[in-house]
Amino acid sequence: MKAFQDYYPEELSHCYGCGSQNPQGHQLKSYWDGDTTVAWFTPEAYHTAIPGYVYGGLIASLIDCHGTGTAAAAAYRAAQRDMGSEPALRFVTASITVDYLAPTPMGEELELRGEVLEIGERKVITQIEVKAAGKACARGIVIAVKMPAGMLPAKN
Amino acid sequence: MKAFQDYYPEELSHCYGCGSQNPQGHQLKSYWDGDTTVAWFTPEAYHTAIPGYVYGGLIASLIDCHGTGTAAAAAYRAAQRDMGSEPALRFVTASITVDYLAPTPMGEELELRGEVLEIGERKVITQIEVKAAGKACARGIVIAVKMPAGMLPAKN
Repeated sequence: MKAFQDYYPEELSHCYGCGSQNPQGHQLKSYWDGDTTVAWFTPEAYHTAIPGYVYGGLIASLIDCHGTGTAAAAAYRAAQRDMGSEPALRFVTASITVDYLAPTPMGEELELRGEVLEIGERKVITQIEVKAAGKACARGIVIAVKMPAGMLPAKN
Repeated sequence: MKAFQDYYPEELSHCYGCGSQNPQGHQLKSYWDGDTTVAWFTPEAYHTAIPGYVYGGLIASLIDCHGTGTAAAAAYRAAQRDMGSEPALRFVTASITVDYLAPTPMGEELELRGEVLEIGERKVITQIEVKAAGKACARGIVIAVKMPAGMLPAKN
């Protein structure tokens, strides 16, 4: 199964959170699961906050990338287009809110579940829930907008 | 000048974003500047989003740590206590919102400015602005709460 991020064009695959071309990054991978989206990530030992718990900034980062990935996938679906087809639909984050519901324990694989709350031509709003060992630890809202043309890097 | 984070007790200094005891982390340092707080951070080349721009998850992480640091410093000030004095006042993030105002260019030192919007016994709300080359790129609101006693690790 190919992840959303594996369809991103090479020049847009350097994101620290989810770019397949960023060896130092988190390389998050997001997938459809029916009408929701899902991603998994196991934090490293150094991704700590208070010892024993996962760093909230990492959780926000994962929510961010799963949110923009879900936005792109949902935009392709709405347009009845394959994710690999050109022109690429790529979204950037306009705003993110994360509520930390409970301390996130270390040593667990985190599950991120995404849901599309609103989809328009230019803007997609998603809700992402993060669970550890089956318990909801954080919930985020990501407002993603189509990447401005001026941000697009030149193709190699 | 000693940073807020350098007053955190050793057992609370492992945070990936700002812990002095986390060699793999960002080691953000926050300071008072009159009634506002300030921190600086230069992203690494791999902290990229779209090439040429800084990863939004990193920006959220810096806002998070500068927000909780500002909350702690403000709580000590409100109590007219030195930051090194016991018992330690340490805050964790209950909620964070980040609005990305403009793409953040790579290759610039980022300046974070913090302002206390609300301070209570248990909860401190701060606003953090992130500037690159003098231009505001992101603005965050961090709702920080006193660390629950149950999260406190044992002292070494």
